[in-house]
Amino acid sequence: MRTQRGRVAGRPTLSEVAARAGVGRGTASRVVNNSSQVSPMLRAAVWEAVRELGYVPNRAARTLVTQRTDSVALVISESGDRAFGEPFFADIARGVSAGLAETPLQLWLSWIQSPGGREKMEHQLTDQHVDGVMLISLHDADPLPGLLVERGLPVVLGGRPARMLDPAAQPAYFVDVDNVGGARQAVEYLAATGHQAIATIAGPQDMGVGVNRLEGYRAALAAYGHPVREDLIAYGDFSAESGIAAMRRLLLVRGDLDAVFAASDLMALGAMQVLHEAGRRIPEDVAVVGYENSSLALHSHPPLTSVHQPVITMGREMARLLAAQIRGDEIPSPAVFLATHLVRRGSA
Amino acid sequence: MRTQRGRVAGRPTLSEVAARAGVGRGTASRVVNNSSQVSPMLRAAVWEAVRELGYVPNRAARTLVTQRTDSVALVISESGDRAFGEPFFADIARGVSAGLAETPLQLWLSWIQSPGGREKMEHQLTDQHVDGVMLISLHDADPLPGLLVERGLPVVLGGRPARMLDPAAQPAYFVDVDNVGGARQAVEYLAATGHQAIATIAGPQDMGVGVNRLEGYRAALAAYGHPVREDLIAYGDFSAESGIAAMRRLLLVRGDLDAVFAASDLMALGAMQVLHEAGRRIPEDVAVVGYENSSLALHSHPPLTSVHQPVITMGREMARLLAAQIRGDEIPSPAVFLATHLVRRGSA
Repeated sequence: MRTQRGRVAGRPTLSEVAARAGVGRGTASRVVNNSSQVSPMLRAAVWEAVRELGYVPNRAARTLVTQRTDSVALVISESGDRAFGEPFFADIARGVSAGLAETPLQLWLSWIQSPGGREKMEHQLTDQHVDGVMLISLHDADPLPGLLVERGLPVVLGGRPARMLDPAAQPAYFVDVDNVGGARQAVEYLAATGHQAIATIAGPQDMGVGVNRLEGYRAALAAYGHPVREDLIAYGDFSAESGIAAMRRLLLVRGDLDAVFAASDLMALGAMQVLHEAGRRIPEDVAVVGYENSSLALHSHPPLTSVHQPVITMGREMARLLAAQIRGDEIPSPAVFLATHLVRRGSA
Repeated sequence: MRTQRGRVAGRPTLSEVAARAGVGRGTASRVVNNSSQVSPMLRAAVWEAVRELGYVPNRAARTLVTQRTDSVALVISESGDRAFGEPFFADIARGVSAGLAETPLQLWLSWIQSPGGREKMEHQLTDQHVDGVMLISLHDADPLPGLLVERGLPVVLGGRPARMLDPAAQPAYFVDVDNVGGARQAVEYLAATGHQAIATIAGPQDMGVGVNRLEGYRAALAAYGHPVREDLIAYGDFSAESGIAAMRRLLLVRGDLDAVFAASDLMALGAMQVLHEAGRRIPEDVAVVGYENSSLALHSHPPLTSVHQPVITMGREMARLLAAQIRGDEIPSPAVFLATHLVRRGSA
């Protein structure tokens, strides 16, 4: 039985080993720490006592027996610049942190430190340093979820790579938001308020969140009888820079556009910057809607209409699913879907 | 010899153990994993082969031999809200991350998850999960640096608790900036530009950074022959909220103040908000100077004059000192001091 503090109750101590072997505690310590300064005979006596009593030298050794480290990892599959630059990741971390507060689990956060960092991370995670892993911002090509599940490590995904949207290929445990519904609501609102040439800045198409928000855009246009025109669709990677580049391309090929739905607040802010520079009034000339309803949406000019997704709850649910797996609880519903809704402000 | 990937070169495999013991690989695996479904005789044979070949079952066990995990921790001794809300911490993490890129070390970031989280963290860090620890935002009462050094774990501090400012009590390894010099430069600039009632919003006095920046303020006033008036000094905890509260107190007791030096950009922004609300023009009625020169300073109204400290370099130097300790390199200079300078913008 392990106690909360990670100690193994009732386990023999080094002093008991020393007593059994008929040596001092210092000698016993040197032997179990593989020091060479002890005679072969005393070493044999100490190791015999270790075996007889079932003594386990220290934490690393206890891990062999208990397979527990009381630590879990939250891995952001992006660079540090993005991990710290985007409010989404901070809110996920806050939620996970809150969700683990009542457990004995310590949270460790990491991200992909460098192009070569992916391999270092794989190695760490598959090598028994943590009891479970939460992964966010996964792309199709990322081998991590497969590697971890193969090793039998408890894993929870936040969102899903595009290839795992198919129910047949769904990962065992994940938390996701209703991205199709949220995007559809945003674009239906733009259509209902009379906009005719509604563009979108979509996310990466190797991420579920990118595919689903574009799907919602297409569904809303279809519902309002608007044709889906490929020259009204540009792509970004959720960052502000990518929103700037995408908006410039859209203005170039479709100068007549009167609304933009961006699949992230940061891309929407980038688009607004380009529209301001081009002298287009928001929302009179071009209405703009973002996705996430982060704190950034409140402070833009004009304040951004955006689809709210409950990011802190998402983190909290990820923590809950992971802790339950680690405890070995029965989990009635391994997939959690959270609702989204449109928050209207000045930009649309 | 360990290779970069953490594997131990030339070590016997489980298959070799199985062959030596005359059993199948599955049986050998069950034995080393302490399964009970193997007869005592086969178990004895496998353990004999394990001992003869010097086989080490897995990573946790190898840690017993090598004492390495190839992971290091960066611990922010603040809540998650502050760890993610303040640009200082993100930049430290970016710097550390860059500093570790060329090493085999994986960075894990954490913070104090809850009031009870401090104990969980102590337990994790002192229990052989990481090869070394970097600590930032330490207060005097924090027992962590002492505990870690006692365990023989390599430690590097970013900044110092106030009690470690004394050269006799200095920790072995730390990176700090010239806080006295930076603050002095800021306040001398305010005095030189004709301000008579220069207030300060100081940081916590159980942190070296808080004590040193107040020391610089006092030194600058003395150099210009201004008396140091205690009613011109208010205290905060570096957060924007604390800057708001401190500025309100200052206006109440010293409505005639014509300049404020805040010991952080966030406190300066909080102070500017209160001054705007009170109808004071910046810098005409009250000049404001911050400390850190974070990205926030660029985007305030008016843009904030601030003392630049090289935060990313600070993180990078922390990583360098820690990696050198872990490698066992000789370290000629265990204390690194980085220079600061004033950046003038619209607020003063």
